[in-house]
Amino acid sequence: MFDLKTPYLLFLGHEANPLAIKTSRGIAQWRPDLCIGENGSQLTLDLPKFNPREAAEKGARTFVIGLTNTTGEISKGWIPDILAAIDAGLDIANGLHQRLRDIKEIRVAAERKNVRLHDVRHQFGELPIGTGQKRSGKRMLMVGTDCSVGKMYSALAVEREMKSREFNVDFRATGQTGILIAGEGVPIDAVVSDYIAGAVEHLCPASNDAHWDVIEGQGSLFNPAYAGVSLGLLHGAQADVLVMCHEAGREQIKDKPGYAIPDMQDCIETNLKMARLTNPEARLGAISLNCRLVGADQANRLCHELEEQFSVPCFDPMIHGAGGFIDLLS
Amino acid sequence: MFDLKTPYLLFLGHEANPLAIKTSRGIAQWRPDLCIGENGSQLTLDLPKFNPREAAEKGARTFVIGLTNTTGEISKGWIPDILAAIDAGLDIANGLHQRLRDIKEIRVAAERKNVRLHDVRHQFGELPIGTGQKRSGKRMLMVGTDCSVGKMYSALAVEREMKSREFNVDFRATGQTGILIAGEGVPIDAVVSDYIAGAVEHLCPASNDAHWDVIEGQGSLFNPAYAGVSLGLLHGAQADVLVMCHEAGREQIKDKPGYAIPDMQDCIETNLKMARLTNPEARLGAISLNCRLVGADQANRLCHELEEQFSVPCFDPMIHGAGGFIDLLS
Repeated sequence: MFDLKTPYLLFLGHEANPLAIKTSRGIAQWRPDLCIGENGSQLTLDLPKFNPREAAEKGARTFVIGLTNTTGEISKGWIPDILAAIDAGLDIANGLHQRLRDIKEIRVAAERKNVRLHDVRHQFGELPIGTGQKRSGKRMLMVGTDCSVGKMYSALAVEREMKSREFNVDFRATGQTGILIAGEGVPIDAVVSDYIAGAVEHLCPASNDAHWDVIEGQGSLFNPAYAGVSLGLLHGAQADVLVMCHEAGREQIKDKPGYAIPDMQDCIETNLKMARLTNPEARLGAISLNCRLVGADQANRLCHELEEQFSVPCFDPMIHGAGGFIDLLS
Repeated sequence: MFDLKTPYLLFLGHEANPLAIKTSRGIAQWRPDLCIGENGSQLTLDLPKFNPREAAEKGARTFVIGLTNTTGEISKGWIPDILAAIDAGLDIANGLHQRLRDIKEIRVAAERKNVRLHDVRHQFGELPIGTGQKRSGKRMLMVGTDCSVGKMYSALAVEREMKSREFNVDFRATGQTGILIAGEGVPIDAVVSDYIAGAVEHLCPASNDAHWDVIEGQGSLFNPAYAGVSLGLLHGAQADVLVMCHEAGREQIKDKPGYAIPDMQDCIETNLKMARLTNPEARLGAISLNCRLVGADQANRLCHELEEQFSVPCFDPMIHGAGGFIDLLS
């Protein structure tokens, strides 16, 4: 899929909006060992500030455009930074919709310096049609009441906890930030719709019986724009264990006026019902509750209530970590 | 979307397998007025046999590669026929996965003769993300227990019946054959997965309150490869009325060993449950039962049983037509 060379120099752009550097923040949070420094912006992730040449001298291999925006375009204002990185001999990794290779001066410079351009939302090779055939190994999938509720953070927290206990486990990325963190993955929302389930089968293939794939989820069966992606993921994953991710205090589906966040019980039951088409043994393993909006005080109470109601562990990955859940996982 | 000039000359290829000309057969069956003749093959659709030059003289405007195969490739053996059609001044329409414009001699010939190449699985312009916002007009969607159970035929039979009664109605195509029949549409299985629901919103936009869109369905919520497409379609359609399509006698999901055809009641309830996310008033309007495998004798009995069980009309569009259903539609 990809072959991103590490370590990274994280490019933070030139904007003041901290949301713009969400992708870089995710990488720095979950793979600090891969991040040699940061570049650009008055914002900071508290990494050493290096220009591309300094970073290259320190051993950096890839300049990561860890930025998000609503248009998905590579801002003209970033091009001098990207060219400087190419000039320093760094590969470039880009998770935005627009392709690096479609910008002529970048393409020409990269060819001249013989560095690689990684457009991670566009490179996934030939994908198969889903087969639905049962495969070996264990799989866990993050599902959610909506988009952007913390499915990637939950998956990474679970992976970290499992690794610390010497489980044989891989995080499987399905979105741009996850892919830049893992160095590989399939950007599932960019796949042609006929291949969604097949792409997930390809992403987390048959494995040995003790091995776990912890799969980043996308969207929600209750999001009117993206539910098709979520269902293809659910079917392709053949998950043994679902983790339901929710943001406490969110009442409306993101960017969809008139759409309420689904009832938790309905959302769990619907996900289990659909998951069981390809894995009749699918079960709810935990609830991951993002308590960003309500704070740590309420988090314990809310998690306790959900544990009572659904008889599974409930945790905020950033407050409690996933330890209580992994204690019970066999 | 497209602008296919009619009438058509239907190209039947050179194979003996009648399944290979399924697309042409569909066009000839539903739009005989668009079909000036047929070309190639020992197989026949009982249309006049013309070579491209004769057809052009009779007024044909587009040479339709109405063929299906498992690889989705344009066979090398067809290229002389395609070049002859171009030479006769006909546009070429192709519903296969491989693009005409990727075959150099075809592209060069088309440029020289100034004829258009329509790769209908690849041309749909920029699509929006789904909004889920309620829109005016009435919509009916074909859903199914599986792929290839007769969703397109059902939609076309319903459209024909509604037209004969002077309903204000449009057939909305979502697959290659449907698009060649309608002359427009969106090949939904070729759309990037983030845009499935948005593509359907775009395909059947807000309309006046008396207008019906009758939308061709794809796949099934119970098909492990394609359910994501089906769910995006269901959400984007905001259908007021679902028609459940099933093939009597089919017991296994097509090409998916180990997957049984779902229970009809479960399939109906699951489709209604999911449809009601974007249209809380969605209801089952009818069951369309393809009785090809069981014959006309059993068809009446099976339809009667399903009518009793589900309290909606049940019909085989090729045996009974859709009249009984449309009698009850308001």
